[in-house]
Amino acid sequence: MKNTFGNQLQVTLFGESHSAGIGVVIDGLAPGIAVDEDYIRAQLKKRRPAGKISTARKEQDEYTIQCGVFNGYTTGTPLCITIPNTAQHSKDYSETRAIARPGHADYTAYCKYHGFEDYRGGGHFSGRLTAALVVAGAILIPALEKKGIKIGTHIRRCAGIDDRGFESYTEDFETLYGSEFPALSQEAADRMVKAIEGAAEEGDSVGGILETAILGVPAGVGEPWFDSVESMLSHAMFSIPAVKGVSFGDGFALADLKGSQANDPFKMDDQAIVTVKNSNGGINGGITNGMPILMQAVIKPTPSIFKEQSTIDFIQKEDAQLQLNGRHDPCILHRACVVADSVCAIVIADLLTQRFGTDYLGEER
Amino acid sequence: MKNTFGNQLQVTLFGESHSAGIGVVIDGLAPGIAVDEDYIRAQLKKRRPAGKISTARKEQDEYTIQCGVFNGYTTGTPLCITIPNTAQHSKDYSETRAIARPGHADYTAYCKYHGFEDYRGGGHFSGRLTAALVVAGAILIPALEKKGIKIGTHIRRCAGIDDRGFESYTEDFETLYGSEFPALSQEAADRMVKAIEGAAEEGDSVGGILETAILGVPAGVGEPWFDSVESMLSHAMFSIPAVKGVSFGDGFALADLKGSQANDPFKMDDQAIVTVKNSNGGINGGITNGMPILMQAVIKPTPSIFKEQSTIDFIQKEDAQLQLNGRHDPCILHRACVVADSVCAIVIADLLTQRFGTDYLGEER
Amino acid sequence: MKNTFGNQLQVTLFGESHSAGIGVVIDGLAPGIAVDEDYIRAQLKKRRPAGKISTARKEQDEYTIQCGVFNGYTTGTPLCITIPNTAQHSKDYSETRAIARPGHADYTAYCKYHGFEDYRGGGHFSGRLTAALVVAGAILIPALEKKGIKIGTHIRRCAGIDDRGFESYTEDFETLYGSEFPALSQEAADRMVKAIEGAAEEGDSVGGILETAILGVPAGVGEPWFDSVESMLSHAMFSIPAVKGVSFGDGFALADLKGSQANDPFKMDDQAIVTVKNSNGGINGGITNGMPILMQAVIKPTPSIFKEQSTIDFIQKEDAQLQLNGRHDPCILHRACVVADSVCAIVIADLLTQRFGTDYLGEER
Amino acid sequence: MKNTFGNQLQVTLFGESHSAGIGVVIDGLAPGIAVDEDYIRAQLKKRRPAGKISTARKEQDEYTIQCGVFNGYTTGTPLCITIPNTAQHSKDYSETRAIARPGHADYTAYCKYHGFEDYRGGGHFSGRLTAALVVAGAILIPALEKKGIKIGTHIRRCAGIDDRGFESYTEDFETLYGSEFPALSQEAADRMVKAIEGAAEEGDSVGGILETAILGVPAGVGEPWFDSVESMLSHAMFSIPAVKGVSFGDGFALADLKGSQANDPFKMDDQAIVTVKNSNGGINGGITNGMPILMQAVIKPTPSIFKEQSTIDFIQKEDAQLQLNGRHDPCILHRACVVADSVCAIVIADLLTQRFGTDYLGEER
Repeated sequence: MKNTFGNQLQVTLFGESHSAGIGVVIDGLAPGIAVDEDYIRAQLKKRRPAGKISTARKEQDEYTIQCGVFNGYTTGTPLCITIPNTAQHSKDYSETRAIARPGHADYTAYCKYHGFEDYRGGGHFSGRLTAALVVAGAILIPALEKKGIKIGTHIRRCAGIDDRGFESYTEDFETLYGSEFPALSQEAADRMVKAIEGAAEEGDSVGGILETAILGVPAGVGEPWFDSVESMLSHAMFSIPAVKGVSFGDGFALADLKGSQANDPFKMDDQAIVTVKNSNGGINGGITNGMPILMQAVIKPTPSIFKEQSTIDFIQKEDAQLQLNGRHDPCILHRACVVADSVCAIVIADLLTQRFGTDYLGEER
Repeated sequence: MKNTFGNQLQVTLFGESHSAGIGVVIDGLAPGIAVDEDYIRAQLKKRRPAGKISTARKEQDEYTIQCGVFNGYTTGTPLCITIPNTAQHSKDYSETRAIARPGHADYTAYCKYHGFEDYRGGGHFSGRLTAALVVAGAILIPALEKKGIKIGTHIRRCAGIDDRGFESYTEDFETLYGSEFPALSQEAADRMVKAIEGAAEEGDSVGGILETAILGVPAGVGEPWFDSVESMLSHAMFSIPAVKGVSFGDGFALADLKGSQANDPFKMDDQAIVTVKNSNGGINGGITNGMPILMQAVIKPTPSIFKEQSTIDFIQKEDAQLQLNGRHDPCILHRACVVADSVCAIVIADLLTQRFGTDYLGEER
Repeated sequence: MKNTFGNQLQVTLFGESHSAGIGVVIDGLAPGIAVDEDYIRAQLKKRRPAGKISTARKEQDEYTIQCGVFNGYTTGTPLCITIPNTAQHSKDYSETRAIARPGHADYTAYCKYHGFEDYRGGGHFSGRLTAALVVAGAILIPALEKKGIKIGTHIRRCAGIDDRGFESYTEDFETLYGSEFPALSQEAADRMVKAIEGAAEEGDSVGGILETAILGVPAGVGEPWFDSVESMLSHAMFSIPAVKGVSFGDGFALADLKGSQANDPFKMDDQAIVTVKNSNGGINGGITNGMPILMQAVIKPTPSIFKEQSTIDFIQKEDAQLQLNGRHDPCILHRACVVADSVCAIVIADLLTQRFGTDYLGEER
Repeated sequence: MKNTFGNQLQVTLFGESHSAGIGVVIDGLAPGIAVDEDYIRAQLKKRRPAGKISTARKEQDEYTIQCGVFNGYTTGTPLCITIPNTAQHSKDYSETRAIARPGHADYTAYCKYHGFEDYRGGGHFSGRLTAALVVAGAILIPALEKKGIKIGTHIRRCAGIDDRGFESYTEDFETLYGSEFPALSQEAADRMVKAIEGAAEEGDSVGGILETAILGVPAGVGEPWFDSVESMLSHAMFSIPAVKGVSFGDGFALADLKGSQANDPFKMDDQAIVTVKNSNGGINGGITNGMPILMQAVIKPTPSIFKEQSTIDFIQKEDAQLQLNGRHDPCILHRACVVADSVCAIVIADLLTQRFGTDYLGEER
């Protein structure tokens, strides 16, 4: 399926950093989802670089709804949005095109596409394509919210500094939605930003861990075996550049627990079935149990750094040294939160559409 | 796609713990893959419970090749293997069927299947279905080896005890292939087994981390965005029961590195392009770079324990206490290694079939 | 997808004429579909050769439900049924394996599978695999009937003799369901049988046209463009061996009509919207309009004949003459009706599952 | 998959008649396919209405390559082309939006999309979207030709008048490629045009049959059962609006043949294996046999006619009369030929990519 994700609700990404435009097709959308363009713009803004700790590329993210929206609602036929690439640097990429940037896809793209790839600015591998994921999320998130489903992501860890965990999801989400640097503890956020600035001064970059909570998904969604909720979420999350690990619930800490510690006992809470804790991240046997879905994703430090690096010229097949110029993000975690939210919205919307049919997420007329 | 995985090479699982049989259909296989039944049996034996630290269920794993093999080679048409369920306990499951075992899928299956699910012995969620994955792997692994691709998994961590990392892949793989408890350090293995026995005596269980290396995959395999090698491998790995996290290269440790530490510099090694280290696990931008693919999977402790647990009766909707009897694995990591190898073989075989066409993995005639 | 059909409800076929067994996996079934084994047997019997105008191969069609049924209902997890091959002739196929039977897949299979194909009795291409389609249909048809959807197929034309068209669907379907030679006019049936017997005496075979009606599918099912109801039905129908054409409504006769003749005017019928005639076969723009879906499929004459035929030896690469022995069906139309019904049931069940969700076809508990 | 077709090479259509634009994403393209923009424009011109027998809508079919082409070659990443809708009539569609045009999708779209559909000018169902299919075909056809595969479609029958069949494919294709009204016999073409004009004068429309030949596909391509070449081609062909039947080889005439007439005897032709005739249309058992693939598609008469028609108002639920104004095509067969070529190119390119891998259709660098 390559650049398409989903079974019933399918999202197709396209574009290259310096092509005419990038974009997304969403097919299998319910008819009657209200499209809020202010919300789309607000979500795009969260992803857009801003402030001292972001790249200087001034992306405008103006977009065109090519089709699939009529009178403010989705039509139920494919929705395509294109975003023109207007901010491309005019510099000549051809000179350095064969000097593989470590941690980037220059060399692997060359192996796969035999030199036909568009190598300008990362081409199809550019993080810019996440704007198209955000657009898709911005269509789906409001529809999910009408069904009582909310998604929020915070920077769980950055540059070795921990944020606190979720306490009150509802309040915490409000904090995150309003923040340019979505951490739950302001004190942790301040220290993270300071560490990022420190790394930037050294010409280096930092990584970290995002944690996403998804609330309100009813029990009984997902599939055993290959299309478990974990399988689908991780499949989609690993499409975000720089994600190198995805875990659920207590994640890798489960390795050191005993069964008596890792199991989440059930109990009755009034008439509802809940678990007393959530080490399994709301998923048992690949299927939701009604508790919050809790997921972590490790984001490796941005590979674009300003220290000299050893590498190769993959066309000349000889060793080479690389010194990057320009400006690049020393950290992308704060910009990646809205991307993670969007990716999760795509997965959950697909699972619900499979479960409840193609009309589920739309309004009635 | 539910119980089917893969784009060009598709694996479909079926079965329930106490149904007539379980099995697998593999479609899209190249014609001309030699089928080695001794190898299939040997691989199944690795997964089968054995020794003090395993359940007493005596599974025979006799299997029938229903179709798809002729004169010792795959035909290129669907290969189906069924494994009869002969060792089912005859006990009555109906009495306790609504007492949700914490950490298991009893309750989530009920929510999804509305009570029509086969609840005996875990039903469709039973780890027994991994035998079908192993069979699929046992068809594919020899075909991959003929292409120079080898897969090996060790118990990287168990009950808080670390194995050493891979040093010499080729020698280390031999150690793992011949071991009933696949750790690289015998001393670590001994300590792990002791810890497992200790947990078992307390009626408890332990978890850990598997690490898999895949050697020999050429550079340029995989897709950007949704079908990255990480996306495909994690999708498949999360189908293994108890896996709650999957990571690549340095995994979650990447969170605390700087870009200058996380990037893998390239260099020429004679005429070959290699990286000087492998923090990215052989994958850049979702595509293989020719280095070993390195993956970790956290396995939560087996949820079946013998300590009394608080839970609910999900039909009566009331609190309940649960005391499991019988025998259950206090640890499944050693049995899961061959399952991880098999799952990886499925993914890699699919990626190569997409890349090089449907005949690639077969022999010529 | 090769041997798998369907988006949400997926049917996977496997087997070869002389392998251990053939079978089918149905995944994405709703939980709670009542499974009627008498009905499965009755449907299989309709497909089984019988009487003077059928092959002498005595197929028993005993089957095993491997999984997916519990207490008489589908569980919602994959349902697999295997049918052992017990009636294989023991004759040696290897001697004549390279003499391509005209109209059969011997040569094309050799080109595709490079000689690894199981060539005995047609191998994977054997019409015997349609028994697995009939089993899948026998699970689905009763579930569809509970939703008010009925499917019936008659022999519209055979050996140049026309059956009458549908008049009263409900009564006509009863006639067809009870018939060993499903034509609506007994007089036409008698003449067709006589023509078949005449062709058989000459060592020849006949073809014809099947016509299927599907009643009760609500308006608004299907997709524009690639997954139109016509696309999905024809895709599935062309998987039936010998089908070489599929059409809807007035079919190829539409070529000679004018727009004013081909359009089906709408009218109100009490509170219901209907069309006054059905030249479009119940489908407009790829989507059902609530009228009966009407489909025709041309079945070429059985390629196994007893006249000497010119052909080649595709291994020796030389001209050859072929004289078939044994017994073969001079006509398969009467046996193909239940296969067409089954295939249509698979398609419609998939479309409804997409539209209304995974629980739609099951009963509530 | 809805608006996406293909397994390894996937084509996704989007757009509505009066939305900002329509377009197509092609994913899974080989890197290194030369993109000839003159050819794209020439192909689009063939589809565009022209002359007396076509609608007056002046479509410009200017397009934008959003991405996927670099330095004149495909990159191997998704190729997206958008075509702006600039010629929309500004008339108010809302007044008549509930008056179902017989033979069109107005009512079925309403049933499916509950009134959220874009009803202007046929919306997503507009024949205008076939321009996106033509664009996809115009990328693929030259790549196929470099592999020795040629595709041509003629108007086999129109308004009751027969064209001659193919005689010399190579010469006949040249005739068709250069013609505005692609029939092989000029005399037949003249009579057809006259008949179309006659129907147009009466305010009526005509239908007919297209016949497509595909040359040069090697033997051994396609799949048995569900993904037979017939299944894939018919699936795609039925996505063309107005197609109501698809057949292969002798098509529905096979109903009246005997086996001895329908079978195509093989013979050696120098070192090549051929058949002496081609009643099976180049396909045996769903797989190509190396002979030309021969396919027919019946096109129903254009449903837009100027005679008053009886219909309903599907919102008011009452009978209504309909009198169409404006101008509409009295015949679309000549414009549909290039669409059929394009659709076949998509199917064949997908089959070859599956068979020979993702690089097959590209050039080497």
